[in-house]
Amino acid sequence: MSTAKFDTIGQYLLKRLYQAGVKDIFGVPGDYVLGFYDLMIKSQVRHIGTTREDSAAFAADGYARCVGMGALAVTYGVGALNTVNAIAGAYAESSPVVLISGAPGVSEQKDDPLIHHRFGPFTFQREIFERISCASVVLNDPVIAFRQIDHAIEAARRFCKPVYIELPRDLVMAEGYPMPTETAEVFTSDQAALSEAIAETMALLAHAKSPMIVAGVELHRRGLQAALAEFVERTGLPVVATLTGKSVMSERHPAYLGIYEGAMSSEAVRDRVEQSDLLLMFGVTLNEIDTGIYTAKLNSHSTIRAALNEVVISAHRYPGIALEDFLDALAGSVGTFSGGSVVSSSEPSASIAFPEPDRPITTARLVERLNGALSNDMIVVCDVGDCLFAAIDLRVHEQSEFLASAFYTTMGFAVPAALGAQIARPDRRALILVGDGAFQMTGTELSTHARLGLNPIVVVFNNGGYSTERCILEGPFNDINPWRFDRLGEVFGPLAGYEAATESEFEVALLNALANHEMPSIINVHLAADDSSEAMKRLAEHLQSKIKRED
Amino acid sequence: MSTAKFDTIGQYLLKRLYQAGVKDIFGVPGDYVLGFYDLMIKSQVRHIGTTREDSAAFAADGYARCVGMGALAVTYGVGALNTVNAIAGAYAESSPVVLISGAPGVSEQKDDPLIHHRFGPFTFQREIFERISCASVVLNDPVIAFRQIDHAIEAARRFCKPVYIELPRDLVMAEGYPMPTETAEVFTSDQAALSEAIAETMALLAHAKSPMIVAGVELHRRGLQAALAEFVERTGLPVVATLTGKSVMSERHPAYLGIYEGAMSSEAVRDRVEQSDLLLMFGVTLNEIDTGIYTAKLNSHSTIRAALNEVVISAHRYPGIALEDFLDALAGSVGTFSGGSVVSSSEPSASIAFPEPDRPITTARLVERLNGALSNDMIVVCDVGDCLFAAIDLRVHEQSEFLASAFYTTMGFAVPAALGAQIARPDRRALILVGDGAFQMTGTELSTHARLGLNPIVVVFNNGGYSTERCILEGPFNDINPWRFDRLGEVFGPLAGYEAATESEFEVALLNALANHEMPSIINVHLAADDSSEAMKRLAEHLQSKIKRED
Repeated sequence: MSTAKFDTIGQYLLKRLYQAGVKDIFGVPGDYVLGFYDLMIKSQVRHIGTTREDSAAFAADGYARCVGMGALAVTYGVGALNTVNAIAGAYAESSPVVLISGAPGVSEQKDDPLIHHRFGPFTFQREIFERISCASVVLNDPVIAFRQIDHAIEAARRFCKPVYIELPRDLVMAEGYPMPTETAEVFTSDQAALSEAIAETMALLAHAKSPMIVAGVELHRRGLQAALAEFVERTGLPVVATLTGKSVMSERHPAYLGIYEGAMSSEAVRDRVEQSDLLLMFGVTLNEIDTGIYTAKLNSHSTIRAALNEVVISAHRYPGIALEDFLDALAGSVGTFSGGSVVSSSEPSASIAFPEPDRPITTARLVERLNGALSNDMIVVCDVGDCLFAAIDLRVHEQSEFLASAFYTTMGFAVPAALGAQIARPDRRALILVGDGAFQMTGTELSTHARLGLNPIVVVFNNGGYSTERCILEGPFNDINPWRFDRLGEVFGPLAGYEAATESEFEVALLNALANHEMPSIINVHLAADDSSEAMKRLAEHLQSKIKRED
Repeated sequence: MSTAKFDTIGQYLLKRLYQAGVKDIFGVPGDYVLGFYDLMIKSQVRHIGTTREDSAAFAADGYARCVGMGALAVTYGVGALNTVNAIAGAYAESSPVVLISGAPGVSEQKDDPLIHHRFGPFTFQREIFERISCASVVLNDPVIAFRQIDHAIEAARRFCKPVYIELPRDLVMAEGYPMPTETAEVFTSDQAALSEAIAETMALLAHAKSPMIVAGVELHRRGLQAALAEFVERTGLPVVATLTGKSVMSERHPAYLGIYEGAMSSEAVRDRVEQSDLLLMFGVTLNEIDTGIYTAKLNSHSTIRAALNEVVISAHRYPGIALEDFLDALAGSVGTFSGGSVVSSSEPSASIAFPEPDRPITTARLVERLNGALSNDMIVVCDVGDCLFAAIDLRVHEQSEFLASAFYTTMGFAVPAALGAQIARPDRRALILVGDGAFQMTGTELSTHARLGLNPIVVVFNNGGYSTERCILEGPFNDINPWRFDRLGEVFGPLAGYEAATESEFEVALLNALANHEMPSIINVHLAADDSSEAMKRLAEHLQSKIKRED
């Protein structure tokens, strides 16, 4: 029986995470973190085991994108270092993942021993993660540990980036001290700047003939989907999204036109955006992907760009304005504005002629068919490669239902991230789109979906290797071992597997998968090696020119 | 047709690696490294594709341990950062792995663009790897690139540690300049110190009643197996090895007694070592594993320890003596010494009574049976967990035939490292010992063995979860999804799979596997959850005391 007055450091960490919305922690146990695991299973927080640590990090990332924060707990060295890529991805993609790494005890570290999992000075692990997190703390002092925990969790929330928390195993059960917490610095918008920016925006809107909205990823990361929807309702302005911002508003909304990403966009969307005389860009990151490899043609003289903490109009900047404040204030002002012109977009036909019985299935037709199958309770989790580009044409329902590593583009994201999404939102079903190469990286994490009785539908875009690379430079290095993905149930069932080379085979598989709520389903879709999305062809053409070759 | 006077940077890198013994480079392609891949397949160096980048790093590690250097080539960010754990392991275990990471072109980096795979300032990736490599270079200047390459490869060779080479994609085909290379600093032993140390050692040997040799891992890493064997032949002294040094001399040699690791050793070995009045410790690292979690009882007053660059006798040190020089000089002096007393060790009985038909198989009996099956052409590659401790009792033939991450103890090492070993030594067959948890981490890399027509025999010690953790602290987090490992051939055959719960089942499976040279074989051995090696039980007992629990 504990007679402790205060929480122990481990207990406090679990409590604060739970309060921040982390009801589940992913990870693989190891002796440096076992004491914390023991506390975890005695707490309200649930442990979700994964096969590997990087899967746990991807899962925490998917979870964070759904509920605002995710966490994983791993052992020192071999565990934490296995997550570097996934955590770097969460950093690049602005996902608040809390990485808890066990560590040798403070008392153990004293004599600088050559203990297992050690790879250098004990400070090195933190130094590595400092580069891919917005806060990193080592809880080696009970006096300040609670404050460090508060600081790290607040940083993750505020900056939407990963944080690193290292917990030496001999301090898990050490009592901490509730010290006065420094008041978290709250960002307050500059009111004068805000008023002026709103006034200028309203004046521009009043004279614009074809204004429209470009919705970006930061709206999702700041949870501003509802604010955007409200603004669209009031103004009736048409909306496009960037690829990283895909699904930040319902893609079935009549005001929604599609994805804009420069030369990779559909012609209709590209023309509308590039000919608009006033673009309201909300939370758009001007990265390589969202600008279609810098092929976007946006006239900066006719854009108003509200970024996280500043508003840029034409060539002048208003620093110190929070994105949410700008959006709120603008929505409050548009009562006086009546220039909106909703143009209903072409809703995808509910009933395409599918299947044509013996017709070999293509990426384009596959996506068309999936558009008809998507329902309100689905989360689409998409991997990298052609399935990502193909997914541009998917029309996702409601808000925030499309998760992808669209900017960092790390292969192997989808299957474990979908695990996180399903744990976060048990009422939703995941539709996982993944290439054959990416599936070979982390797809066996589907074993965990199966173990937990989850029922994602996995569509493997099987085109026989690394087809994105193939478009840039063909070589035998793009070949991979053809897996019978549909037979994975033999190894770690329950799991229903299907093969599909024709439209009718796919139709049968899809209907079966949709009807089977008991277990994961996986459809191994055989696509021709030269079948790729139009967007990918354009991308490859561009990248090709960058690779210098000897001829 | 190239009119270049000198090699391009990419060509030079490939040429120098080839000269250093790297005939094969592992890795997964990606656009930042595709230009280098294109050069590679036009060169003498062969590309070996893996499913993931960390597998490529483990494979390069296994390759390096067999031929003295290994290499992998991956893309920037998502590729390189996936290898951090495996490279840290190679650092901890002293394995000279050359990591080549493609990178955005120098010209691309200029405007600091938000390009894919980017996670921070472009310098961060190097800064991460600087902590887990003995040299790190960015080849962004053609004038010095050749010298940087020479420097990095020489550092890997000299320090037996990983090196990091970053190659911006627009410089792969840039011509380099053959500048005068700084003469590599050659370590020369202090001759006076050497003579004195040899004299003192000879004097001590002359009076010792029970001298013996403890052989450590550095003998393997410096390629001194033959020198050790020669010394043993001349002196007739009995030998034990540390666990990380296991197989540095043939474990079937009559002078060989077994593995010493403190309280975890067999009683016979422990008594012999701890009661010896003179221990000659060659290349022994006094780490946690080799000292049996610091339970080794070695009287420093009766030890002569030759480390990499110094000799320590009793409480005084002779700095500046290279291990190889000491060993050579000592071997040259023992003509005058006649105190050797070979005590033939108990060779494991060639014919144990196996199988007892319906007897459930145990770890101990499994290892006994494998001892009978081991042949001269086998390399044993062992993962972490109980199979590692169990392998203490395996008696490996000849030199350097046992590979494991025995100090860093990263799970998932064995299957990909065995790939590297088999590519390095096509005349050998790998026997892979791996736990069920470790197999779920990287075991699907067996797909690559299958694709390449390799024929390892995989023995899965399937005890239903993380049993090493279970011994320390039991909890539901130690459970994993039971895989039908024997059915993996369904997914990525050709692969022969077997299940074995009894001795007779194992016998049949093993004989089939031994006879099948066409493909990988995998034996899913069902062990009781409470069946563990004696060494593991002792280890767990020790670790248990370090985990603070609330009761």
